[in-house]
Amino acid sequence: MIDIFTDDYFMKKALQEAETAFEKGEIPVGAVIVIDNKVIARTHNLTEMLNDVTAHAEMQAITSAANFIGGKYLKDCTLYVTLEPCQMCAGALYWSQISKIVYGATDEKRGFTKMGTQLHPKTEVVGGILEKECALLMRAFFRLRR
Amino acid sequence: MIDIFTDDYFMKKALQEAETAFEKGEIPVGAVIVIDNKVIARTHNLTEMLNDVTAHAEMQAITSAANFIGGKYLKDCTLYVTLEPCQMCAGALYWSQISKIVYGATDEKRGFTKMGTQLHPKTEVVGGILEKECALLMRAFFRLRR
Repeated sequence: MIDIFTDDYFMKKALQEAETAFEKGEIPVGAVIVIDNKVIARTHNLTEMLNDVTAHAEMQAITSAANFIGGKYLKDCTLYVTLEPCQMCAGALYWSQISKIVYGATDEKRGFTKMGTQLHPKTEVVGGILEKECALLMRAFFRLRR
Repeated sequence: MIDIFTDDYFMKKALQEAETAFEKGEIPVGAVIVIDNKVIARTHNLTEMLNDVTAHAEMQAITSAANFIGGKYLKDCTLYVTLEPCQMCAGALYWSQISKIVYGATDEKRGFTKMGTQLHPKTEVVGGILEKECALLMRAFFRLRR
């Protein structure tokens, strides 16, 4: 049997969210949260529309997934996000005790790896899934803004 | 002229918020954001009630203050919070470019100082304002929960 529910499969869903952000003039970052191969949250960055620095895709996804689950811990969940999380989002993911974080493009300047933000010891991290596609969307956005 | 608008004055407002959290069974952390000696946001931790790890007092205060201002940067604002911010909240404060952070009790385990979270270079930090009162409320809360 071929498993269609790969990391690429769910990252494509996150990329669709990032494209929606792009169309709205938001920095194009999208996220989905998955449990048992089911998407329970899909969000994109809304910092401009909401005038709120806390409105990153991941933050909204955490809130949305917790609401779906009816509990604040995301122990059996995987987050797919098109850009490496920042300090704030990694800090939120730390509290959520999420099982796995899968990100697309690396954020060399503001990513949690560079910033040294601590994740929960039980959280697994995979980077570089559909990295080119995720990074391309970001570059296209900033090229337009110049 | 005596200036009543001291750090103690505003930290007492944050403490009142922390007491409200305590009464609701929430970890008692309260926050206010001040601009030109005017309180523009007052919030307390609601992680239990909202089932949401992102509902720390500071996060809500940032959102609320930005809403009041009508812009996402808090450049002329001061945050008063009864407990030293965590990685997530410090990360959000980084993005907000807030002028000043004043906290009460130190969080030796999860505070941003211990965790090495980076703040915006323009953000001034003052710790230890009404430290005893802030810490006492936390200790009373956890003693009750044992």
